Amino acid sequence: MEKLDLLYEGKAKRIFRTNEEDVVWIQYKDSATAFNGEKKEEITGKGRLNNEITSLLFDKLKQAGVDSHFIQKISATEQLVKQVTIIPLEVVVRNLIAGSLATRLGIEEGTKLEQPIVEFYYKNDDLGDPIITEDHIQVLQAATPEQVQVLKEKALHINEVLRDHFLKSNLRLVDFKLEFGLTNEGTILLADEISPDTCRLWDMDTNEKFDKDVFRRNIGSLTDAYNNVLSRLGGGQHV
Amino acid sequence: MEKLDLLYEGKAKRIFRTNEEDVVWIQYKDSATAFNGEKKEEITGKGRLNNEITSLLFDKLKQAGVDSHFIQKISATEQLVKQVTIIPLEVVVRNLIAGSLATRLGIEEGTKLEQPIVEFYYKNDDLGDPIITEDHIQVLQAATPEQVQVLKEKALHINEVLRDHFLKSNLRLVDFKLEFGLTNEGTILLADEISPDTCRLWDMDTNEKFDKDVFRRNIGSLTDAYNNVLSRLGGGQHV
Ligand SMILES: Nc1ncnc2c1ncn2[C@@H]1O[C@H](COP(=O)(O)OP(=O)(O)O)[C@@H](O)[C@H]1O
Ligand SMILES: Nc1ncnc2c1ncn2[C@@H]1O[C@H](COP(=O)(O)OP(=O)(O)O)[C@@H](O)[C@H]1O
Ligand SMILES: [Mg+2]
Ligand SMILES: [Mg+2]
Repeated sequence: MEKLDLLYEGKAKRIFRTNEEDVVWIQYKDSATAFNGEKKEEITGKGRLNNEITSLLFDKLKQAGVDSHFIQKISATEQLVKQVTIIPLEVVVRNLIAGSLATRLGIEEGTKLEQPIVEFYYKNDDLGDPIITEDHIQVLQAATPEQVQVLKEKALHINEVLRDHFLKSNLRLVDFKLEFGLTNEGTILLADEISPDTCRLWDMDTNEKFDKDVFRRNIGSLTDAYNNVLSRLGGGQHV
Repeated sequence: MEKLDLLYEGKAKRIFRTNEEDVVWIQYKDSATAFNGEKKEEITGKGRLNNEITSLLFDKLKQAGVDSHFIQKISATEQLVKQVTIIPLEVVVRNLIAGSLATRLGIEEGTKLEQPIVEFYYKNDDLGDPIITEDHIQVLQAATPEQVQVLKEKALHINEVLRDHFLKSNLRLVDFKLEFGLTNEGTILLADEISPDTCRLWDMDTNEKFDKDVFRRNIGSLTDAYNNVLSRLGGGQHV
């Protein structure tokens, strides 16, 4: 497989074309960003950690019957994935109230939800990724009503698989963000990444945070936190 | 009917108890506020205009079969209404994109929606009345799923009645906010007010604004605009 020209550089990853149609080469960067890019830092090792954690989780999901864009990890910071047309929605699943939902509803962070809830945000940096309703999705023509139903079902299924998986590592999956894409055949495929950048993960006993909130809130070392997650998931330690 | 003690003073109205149980006395104030109280002004005549417009519209809705809390207008600035327990939701119906929705979706103000949409905001000044999803309504226990369906149906029906009514006055009903309450018997009743404070109203031909945006955006005289709406609706002019 050959790595060809850069298709897109995002905040966390670079996407390259390859000599194979429908396959793109993803390189995880060492940049950490928060608050829509307002807070920004280079953190050596972050790209490797997220690449490894994402690869482990997409493998786990595959075993549980959840297809994704993931093909294979090809280096410490790179992976090959199926190219998709990203649906411009951030699909968020929540098991506990935290972050923006705590602020929105005025309810204490850590409050358990009776059942998981799915939220949609419009993936648009210029607009600050605003929360939107299912009617707004129709106005934006971001996805059909049928696709929205599929996204919700897939998101809740992925939540069950991941929640159980993290539980075995004594981590509580508080919430997480997914992105989906459409293949050429119109199939909806889980895409992007699943990492401590995109999940809230709290120790089951102490509620210690092992996710990007460590960076957002300046409450510890991001690499220590992400290394901890990787090793709990059975991945290789990186010193 | 006797006016007894003040039950609640809001940004636009005062609510008094009466000697009759289940009946409250509403006095419309001359205060104009916007941006969650950040912009504030006393505007002589505003209370009278909103009281008269609201009374006309609740009467019109009644003729169309839509029950509300409205009993009768008792003075230029006062009315009697059935007391309800307000459901802490602002129910917004939109026919065209304007205001916060234009900002949220990055779509130009004035864009027509293919069909009217209903949005829910959590009525909570401390939190800035945030937009919420139907799942959030369950988390807040603000209304049951069945009540949410009733709110949506009622809101869309009210939209049809009001839209047609304003059309006869050559006014376009762009969007509006409703509040509903529960009677002692658990019935959902339209409550609060319907006025240029709570509707966006544009001239059908010129798109000139005849609503609170005149005040929010400093683009003219609020009393001129509201007087214009009142007289178009066939109400008495106030000089
Ligand atoms: N399989 C895929 N095919 C095409 N694009 C993808 C795929 N998976 C993820 N992407 C996109 O790659 C881009 C780069 O990722 P990232 O750096 O996280 O970007 P962003 O700053 O937009 O979050 C994102 O726009 C993401 O949606
Ligand atoms: N029929 C009713 N019974 C009880 N309360 C009502 C009724 N109609 C409206 N209200 C409430 O009266 C209060 C005063 O109105 P307003 O000045 O507009 O308040 P706010 O500043 O909260 O918007 C509001 O909380 C409104 O929800
Ligand atoms: Mg991203
Ligand atoms: Mg009010």
